[in-house]
Amino acid sequence: MSFIKYLECTNTKCNNTEDIHKIQNQCTKCSYPLFVRYHLDKIRSNYTKGTAIDFKLNSLWRYKLLLPVIDDKFIVTLGEGMTPLIACTNLHGNFQLHAEQKLWVKDESQNPTSTFKCRGSSVAMSKVKELGIESIVIPTNGNAGSAWACYGAKSQTQVNIYTPKDATFMAKQESILFGAQVVLVDGLISDCSKMVQKHLELNPKCFDVSTLREPYRLEGKKTMGLEIWEQMNGCLPNVIVYPTGGGVGLIGIYKAFQELLELGWVDSCKMPKFISVQSEGCCPLIEAYERGDSKCTFFNGASTIATGMRVPRSLGDFLLLDIIRQTNGAFITVTEQEIIEMHSLAPKKEGLFMCYEGASALAAIQKAKSLGHIQDSDKDIVVINTGSGLKNKLEYLID
Amino acid sequence: MSFIKYLECTNTKCNNTEDIHKIQNQCTKCSYPLFVRYHLDKIRSNYTKGTAIDFKLNSLWRYKLLLPVIDDKFIVTLGEGMTPLIACTNLHGNFQLHAEQKLWVKDESQNPTSTFKCRGSSVAMSKVKELGIESIVIPTNGNAGSAWACYGAKSQTQVNIYTPKDATFMAKQESILFGAQVVLVDGLISDCSKMVQKHLELNPKCFDVSTLREPYRLEGKKTMGLEIWEQMNGCLPNVIVYPTGGGVGLIGIYKAFQELLELGWVDSCKMPKFISVQSEGCCPLIEAYERGDSKCTFFNGASTIATGMRVPRSLGDFLLLDIIRQTNGAFITVTEQEIIEMHSLAPKKEGLFMCYEGASALAAIQKAKSLGHIQDSDKDIVVINTGSGLKNKLEYLID
Ligand SMILES: Cc1ncc(COP(=O)(O)O)c(C=O)c1O
Ligand SMILES: Cc1ncc(COP(=O)(O)O)c(C=O)c1O
Ligand SMILES: [Zn+2]
Ligand SMILES: [Zn+2]
Repeated sequence: MSFIKYLECTNTKCNNTEDIHKIQNQCTKCSYPLFVRYHLDKIRSNYTKGTAIDFKLNSLWRYKLLLPVIDDKFIVTLGEGMTPLIACTNLHGNFQLHAEQKLWVKDESQNPTSTFKCRGSSVAMSKVKELGIESIVIPTNGNAGSAWACYGAKSQTQVNIYTPKDATFMAKQESILFGAQVVLVDGLISDCSKMVQKHLELNPKCFDVSTLREPYRLEGKKTMGLEIWEQMNGCLPNVIVYPTGGGVGLIGIYKAFQELLELGWVDSCKMPKFISVQSEGCCPLIEAYERGDSKCTFFNGASTIATGMRVPRSLGDFLLLDIIRQTNGAFITVTEQEIIEMHSLAPKKEGLFMCYEGASALAAIQKAKSLGHIQDSDKDIVVINTGSGLKNKLEYLID
Repeated sequence: MSFIKYLECTNTKCNNTEDIHKIQNQCTKCSYPLFVRYHLDKIRSNYTKGTAIDFKLNSLWRYKLLLPVIDDKFIVTLGEGMTPLIACTNLHGNFQLHAEQKLWVKDESQNPTSTFKCRGSSVAMSKVKELGIESIVIPTNGNAGSAWACYGAKSQTQVNIYTPKDATFMAKQESILFGAQVVLVDGLISDCSKMVQKHLELNPKCFDVSTLREPYRLEGKKTMGLEIWEQMNGCLPNVIVYPTGGGVGLIGIYKAFQELLELGWVDSCKMPKFISVQSEGCCPLIEAYERGDSKCTFFNGASTIATGMRVPRSLGDFLLLDIIRQTNGAFITVTEQEIIEMHSLAPKKEGLFMCYEGASALAAIQKAKSLGHIQDSDKDIVVINTGSGLKNKLEYLID
């Protein structure tokens, strides 16, 4: 039984819908991103929040009811998801949080390729199989590529990767080990995207899984939100802090909460504030936000140690700007120095060896507090650690 | 409510028991390792296998009933355990397995510090806190050290590590990041052990958590066995294949199955065959086994790329030799070449970027089959991938 309704255009002026059974990338009318929509009303009348989750499955597939795969036999899984939500009490003092406030880290390092990217690849690769697609192509800063390569191997699907030649050694190495075709590009992810377009011209049957150019990765990332809700016993936190590159993770978590609220399955609390964190070395979003724009301009000279956040412009910029405004959230930038300091403080204080991106998000708490975006009344603050420190070049440590 | 009975000496000629409430290392009478024993009869009369597990906890702590911590408030956790048991169908052909045979990989890379070592550290560190201990010391090939350092940080306990100076970069780096005191030793883990003895002479209050020199790490490792049982719906597999260094993981899994069998909670099947895998470069166990001995001699010139298995002699040798004999199992050695080949085959075939130790275990399947240790009637074969490939030096890949 599947409750998928259709794919819906995210352009509110377009409102086009597309068939879920066909291979689709962006809206065929206006080329905006497409979202998967479900018959939430039918789910509500057939399930309760107690019966909706398949508790026996210890992976994100326990939320199959809210995922876009119709036939279980296409599921490609390595046990991704169901990562812990860890209470960080030792860092409490560093952030001068109140005794009743709780700082949580959702630890995405405990995933198959040690980042949250596996969520997107598992769900989207399953859908790729269901749609009968045989090869995919992706521009990536590294981690998404290795996650796609990993699920490509598991499902024996051909994976083509375009990645900056200065992407992390581990991500490149993993992608190659997983058997993907890897092209190293002398440039940024935006340059990789151009090469992907060329690849598609030459290989029209190859499926483009670039960020928000297909609707399924988002559904995988969404499960972070579903898990947070389950792990908070059916409540939502007050604040979500997310290290932002393309922003799919943040949009996904927001979409999860929207669906849960619409289902009427949220016990208390309302939609959390979303705090989107970028590095000063690449912060197109805050610039657009402060200008009051609904879209970003290309960020020139993007450079940060947190390579996953080195995205000079995202296709989902308008969605991100909207979510931050809707939820009364904020964009926060951190310096490279603040990222590195938190990267070496978190392991000593909390036993968390985070990736630079996760460390960026944690580093933003202080500033978010002092700017009034996190208040004393915010009881539960959830920071997403998107991956393991093992995936980074540890430049600052090697001597 | 706690069902802990006492600590029992593993020397069948001694049979001494020790008080669980006191700080204990080895048997005070004969200095053999001590095992934690539980009132299994009382557990059996108070619980069923359906009520024994705390399903809401998505970590190894769901088996608290069979763990040695009395008061929950001492639990030090980062969400360790509950790793997936992954069906490996693509490798089927490579091993010429029958259609009804199932090859499973228990993927321990999806743990906090990306190896199974976190299980031991979480459980033993919790007990360390309950016993009021403030500092611990450990000789390690690397991964155990970083796991202890990690839980040391989380619980703010002082951790002293002695590790070979050629231990993997990542393990050393992690231990330092987690704030441990790390001493690099010019030698093998056996040399580190000697330095730990000196450390203890100078610091008598420091607790020795060397392999099998205290009874609690084993209880953490045991949870791999409990999970396999739960994930196989209350059955046990036919074969367990384990990459062996000190051997605590293997002994732990065996102890789990013994307890479950004694509880009467195993639906079908009997105790599996245990296959213990070592590298030709360090295989003290098979030598002793073939000589018919109950103890090993020191393996001279130990050397293997799978550094976790570079243990020239284990304190638990007599237990390992006994388990393999009791279960009609086997010791299998693999060559360095076979390890490397499997290390690069598994990611391409199954999306599994394994550590060299896990790759060793998987590589042994072929030989175990051809030697008749795995037979057509063996339906479920479980290989333990003890950690992530991210923890290794990728010598053979870097050019
Ligand atoms: C570790 C890590 N964190 C964060 C991000 C940014 O993710 P998103 O696209 O959801 O903004 C990436 C993307 O590459 C990443 O690899
Ligand atoms: C990755 C890995 N696998 C296996 C082992 C061996 O473990 P055991 O002591 O249980 O034999 C180790 C020990 O260091 C290890 O780090
Ligand atoms: Zn449209
Ligand atoms: Zn004794």
